[in-house]
Amino acid sequence: MNPELIALIGSIQPADAAARKRARARQAQLTKPAGALGDLEELGARLAGVFGSEKPHPRGVAVLVAAGDHGVAAGGVSAYPPEVTPAMVANFLADTPAGPGGAAVNAIARTVGARVYVMDAGVNAELPDHPALVRASLRRGTRDLRLEAAMTMQETESLILAGAALAKQAIENGADLIVPGEMGIGNTTPAAALTARLLDVDAAQVTGRGTGVDDVTLARKLEAVRKALARTDAVDPLTVLAEFGGYEIAAMLGMMLQAAALRRAVVLDGFVEGSAAMVGVALAPALRDFLFPAGECAEIGHAAQLSALGLKPMFKLGLRLGEGTGGVLAAPLLLSAAATLREMRTFEEAGVPGGD
Amino acid sequence: MNPELIALIGSIQPADAAARKRARARQAQLTKPAGALGDLEELGARLAGVFGSEKPHPRGVAVLVAAGDHGVAAGGVSAYPPEVTPAMVANFLADTPAGPGGAAVNAIARTVGARVYVMDAGVNAELPDHPALVRASLRRGTRDLRLEAAMTMQETESLILAGAALAKQAIENGADLIVPGEMGIGNTTPAAALTARLLDVDAAQVTGRGTGVDDVTLARKLEAVRKALARTDAVDPLTVLAEFGGYEIAAMLGMMLQAAALRRAVVLDGFVEGSAAMVGVALAPALRDFLFPAGECAEIGHAAQLSALGLKPMFKLGLRLGEGTGGVLAAPLLLSAAATLREMRTFEEAGVPGGD
Repeated sequence: MNPELIALIGSIQPADAAARKRARARQAQLTKPAGALGDLEELGARLAGVFGSEKPHPRGVAVLVAAGDHGVAAGGVSAYPPEVTPAMVANFLADTPAGPGGAAVNAIARTVGARVYVMDAGVNAELPDHPALVRASLRRGTRDLRLEAAMTMQETESLILAGAALAKQAIENGADLIVPGEMGIGNTTPAAALTARLLDVDAAQVTGRGTGVDDVTLARKLEAVRKALARTDAVDPLTVLAEFGGYEIAAMLGMMLQAAALRRAVVLDGFVEGSAAMVGVALAPALRDFLFPAGECAEIGHAAQLSALGLKPMFKLGLRLGEGTGGVLAAPLLLSAAATLREMRTFEEAGVPGGD
Repeated sequence: MNPELIALIGSIQPADAAARKRARARQAQLTKPAGALGDLEELGARLAGVFGSEKPHPRGVAVLVAAGDHGVAAGGVSAYPPEVTPAMVANFLADTPAGPGGAAVNAIARTVGARVYVMDAGVNAELPDHPALVRASLRRGTRDLRLEAAMTMQETESLILAGAALAKQAIENGADLIVPGEMGIGNTTPAAALTARLLDVDAAQVTGRGTGVDDVTLARKLEAVRKALARTDAVDPLTVLAEFGGYEIAAMLGMMLQAAALRRAVVLDGFVEGSAAMVGVALAPALRDFLFPAGECAEIGHAAQLSALGLKPMFKLGLRLGEGTGGVLAAPLLLSAAATLREMRTFEEAGVPGGD
């Protein structure tokens, strides 16, 4: 394995259990009935662990959208043609009357004050230069996972490190909540293969309708996942990732590893992000401490990922868009959970009767 | 009925169905798979109806916290003594290092950029003067609903109009999303009585643990609700509200009616807010178009209210605090839903293949 990647994985330590415990003790003293903030209290305590303080103070939010194409998309596994991937990259970067970017993730990020980064992780097109486009592409789309390994190991490691570098930059620019996001027509197919292999479940349990494919396309997609799984017995996490792809999934994995190494919170959007997280926790189990699933998305298989992580999502809005949209939507909930720990007064401070 | 109140109720018109329809048509053209934004699409369409535009642009968020005491609290229906109500009002207004207010609603409101208004709707204490405290109290707490009408009709109408006036002020100050909130030890007892009578269900189905009472206190609370229900056959919504109370519930009802009359969105927090909404839709069925339930709270009976409204909450975080906290947490989701309609480009504008 690439020495830089070995070092990155090795640098991920568990979150601060003592800070989490202090946060729990503090929550019992804050001016509210015990447990009245529901799941926000667990989220707050976990953030205390991530940031090493019972008064965690996460500030900036960044969504890092990696885009890549997939050889398997030529096999008709999506409701949309592969040309949508580069067109959406252009859309993420477009000048619009509201500001940069005309996609859902841009509109939501502007609303919650998140910064958007866009990476070409391996789009099958010549993308025009743009100052905000991070170039990390080594190949115009992965190979077809039905027939051969989607990525070489060198490509895989390179994209992981590119994702890590972008996360580091976002963190240096002020982000404490990192939201990996993706765009890639066909990418729920490799995500399903990854999830099936890493969780050791049948392909049918984790292969869903993605952007909304019909029954015929779903059958073709499931067949593609089964072919890929039958083609290789690999179980080593990085090999599994290389075998099934894709470039944007590798990049998101790198973002997660780097964020955890720098002790920042990762807000997990949907199923494709979840597949990167499955690889990540297989490589570095402590990564789990830094992951905050946003919502349970509509894609089947996402629930299996969340169950494997043992983490509860914050909402279930039926999102199935990707781009990191769900993660950005969840950011204000996490910032609020931290704010209650940091800014609420205790019973004693407030002179409110009823504390311990 | 008070003529001003008759005029207010009469001025509530249904939301703009044509704008809602145009929003639906626009959503089908935006650069995302059909329906991929899940429940955000329905929320966006409903906001289009409220604001009369397929590109709704809600701006400010305000949480209006009304505080009141309850005669029944002397009967031991809460885990906390009534003295907590004035102490929490002082907490809402306190100077803290983070800014004004040391309660959960203050911390969350600061995080999402919401303005907090605090109203004394009938607290059982002499509250010190504070420039940010809105005084609307007519009596230091309601009468005991087990024994007599909690409020006179004149008090009831006066508090409704005071809530309406505060909502009008918040709207004039720039709020487009109005979050009614409350503080009042014992107030899930009148809320349960109101809900049981207006939904015609048994008291046990809507009487819960509030701030977290034990089994003995819960039994006493249920007995109090049953006594109140047995004491009067009233079904007229305003009479039911006067019979059971409380002052802060009347004030929240006024906020909702005024927001709907001025065509602003009302974000509904929990069970006590829901009981005010039950009175509101009984008085003005079109109010429903303007209500956006935040989360399903942990209090039993809230689900029955949501079912009666026929509206789906945005999350289920197990909150049971009140103060409007859930409503403030939901505000970024609503602002984001509106932003996608307003700021996303269409397939045609973006040159993305795959639109109709």
